[in-house]
Amino acid sequence: MPPKLFEAVPNFSEGRDEAKISRIVSSVRNTPGVRVLDLHSDPDHNRSVLTFAGEEEPLLQASVDLARACAREIDLAAHSGVHPRMGSLDVLPFVPLGPPLSEATLEDAARLARSAGLAIGSLGLPVYLYGAAASASHRENLAEVRRGGYHGLVARADDPLWEPDYGPEKLPPRSGAVAVGARSFLVAFNANLDTDDVEVARAVAGEVRERDGGLPGVKALGLEVEGRAQVSMNLTDLERTSIPTAFEAVRRSAERRDAKVESTELVGLVPLAAVLEAARDYLTLPELGAKQVLEAALWDRADFSGK
Amino acid sequence: MPPKLFEAVPNFSEGRDEAKISRIVSSVRNTPGVRVLDLHSDPDHNRSVLTFAGEEEPLLQASVDLARACAREIDLAAHSGVHPRMGSLDVLPFVPLGPPLSEATLEDAARLARSAGLAIGSLGLPVYLYGAAASASHRENLAEVRRGGYHGLVARADDPLWEPDYGPEKLPPRSGAVAVGARSFLVAFNANLDTDDVEVARAVAGEVRERDGGLPGVKALGLEVEGRAQVSMNLTDLERTSIPTAFEAVRRSAERRDAKVESTELVGLVPLAAVLEAARDYLTLPELGAKQVLEAALWDRADFSGK
Repeated sequence: MPPKLFEAVPNFSEGRDEAKISRIVSSVRNTPGVRVLDLHSDPDHNRSVLTFAGEEEPLLQASVDLARACAREIDLAAHSGVHPRMGSLDVLPFVPLGPPLSEATLEDAARLARSAGLAIGSLGLPVYLYGAAASASHRENLAEVRRGGYHGLVARADDPLWEPDYGPEKLPPRSGAVAVGARSFLVAFNANLDTDDVEVARAVAGEVRERDGGLPGVKALGLEVEGRAQVSMNLTDLERTSIPTAFEAVRRSAERRDAKVESTELVGLVPLAAVLEAARDYLTLPELGAKQVLEAALWDRADFSGK
Repeated sequence: MPPKLFEAVPNFSEGRDEAKISRIVSSVRNTPGVRVLDLHSDPDHNRSVLTFAGEEEPLLQASVDLARACAREIDLAAHSGVHPRMGSLDVLPFVPLGPPLSEATLEDAARLARSAGLAIGSLGLPVYLYGAAASASHRENLAEVRRGGYHGLVARADDPLWEPDYGPEKLPPRSGAVAVGARSFLVAFNANLDTDDVEVARAVAGEVRERDGGLPGVKALGLEVEGRAQVSMNLTDLERTSIPTAFEAVRRSAERRDAKVESTELVGLVPLAAVLEAARDYLTLPELGAKQVLEAALWDRADFSGK
């Protein structure tokens, strides 16, 4: 087990120009010790989500290079897109890859976020820390930090409660500001129902989410996606609510409303343990562990020549 | 994807003396480029099953070192145990780790088995090739090769149909002979029923196995294990019959006989794809692929410093 591994999941404000996206991502790809795991670009939102992982120092280097590349390539003043944004590199969360992947904790990720914030501030970008890295409780919630997007920050320019944590106080119109934070690993899990009635999805979401007395660590919304009702969930504590547990709760709640789960989707990456949990539940196979997965046995500390 | 990876799953005739087992296994562990994935020692059978993996050359080296260590440590003449055996290193199958793990084929594994057989024969042990490496069709089935164990080989000593493929014609009493072969990857999957009536397990096994018109690539037996009826399966072609498909067939067949699947077990290693298949089926999650598994993304061609 490597001592401490983290994932960074930056969102940047370019989802259309492939050449620009490629130049921005190559700033990360070229950092030794960093592995790019995923890139998802959305032309409607004109926004990309990049996932990369590594140990603390290479991740810090890659994050600063990424912020510099975004500031160089993206002119926020000329930007259009559905998604509210406040910067060229808009949001930069760090996520600890805890046991069994590594020994990283949320506190480690918060320290990494502060180091990255300091360095990105030195590039001339205002930095707002959020999540577990926030400098005050009113800044913990990312939605509060980015309320109103770029124009919201302009409106709050003279409010001492909203001074940036690092970087210049004056907002650069071309690059905007960056929210740098730390949060726990989460799994984005959506269930598509066999109805076009979004109220069913909303009722199911209300029943399963923690806020309204549902399952621990579950956030949920009822949405309409391509004419279908979808229960869109974030599972923030897989130890307490696994994917199959959330699935069963949605299935039963939908059934009580004469609806069925037609299909589900996982957005982004999931830990192997979460997949094993589903296989264990389905196959009544209590003993199944990561040690039985051939690839896990082969790849953990892989040392084959030529790899 | 490394060009060609194989698994070797040798069975050797010592399952009680931990010091001997440890010395035998260290002959494999000390070979650079080889990774020991699993060791299972059974005192009743006085037998151990070792699983290791690597590319062709290191695997060949480790196999010869293993045969030498078994011949040195184990005196077959003084051996006792339930399981029939014909040698100190009794059976040595090579298994190709095909796509997506590597590009190895069954023909590659057969070539590797013949190279290993030649080298082990040079140590002074009679070698019988079997499976995809067999030199004649009557030697393909391992059960035929080892019929009667050591004494069966002695009885067939003058039969030209049963000359060894490599090594001396005269059987050394201390080390015996080795069966070296090649076979496809298989998953050993058992379903424990909620009945003590072994006839139910036998009927279910008869219904699901390929030989009697059941599922492609499925071998199955009904057994009594610790007072419970068990359907013991080998799934030899996961592309055509996946774990969840076999599970559902057993579940339905048992249900028709008023029995339920209480639990299941996987013996040894399973490919990640097989686990994903179960999660996909259970969660109606058609898009789930290995690329979404965090560990797979991290470990494939892992290049983190310190690993």
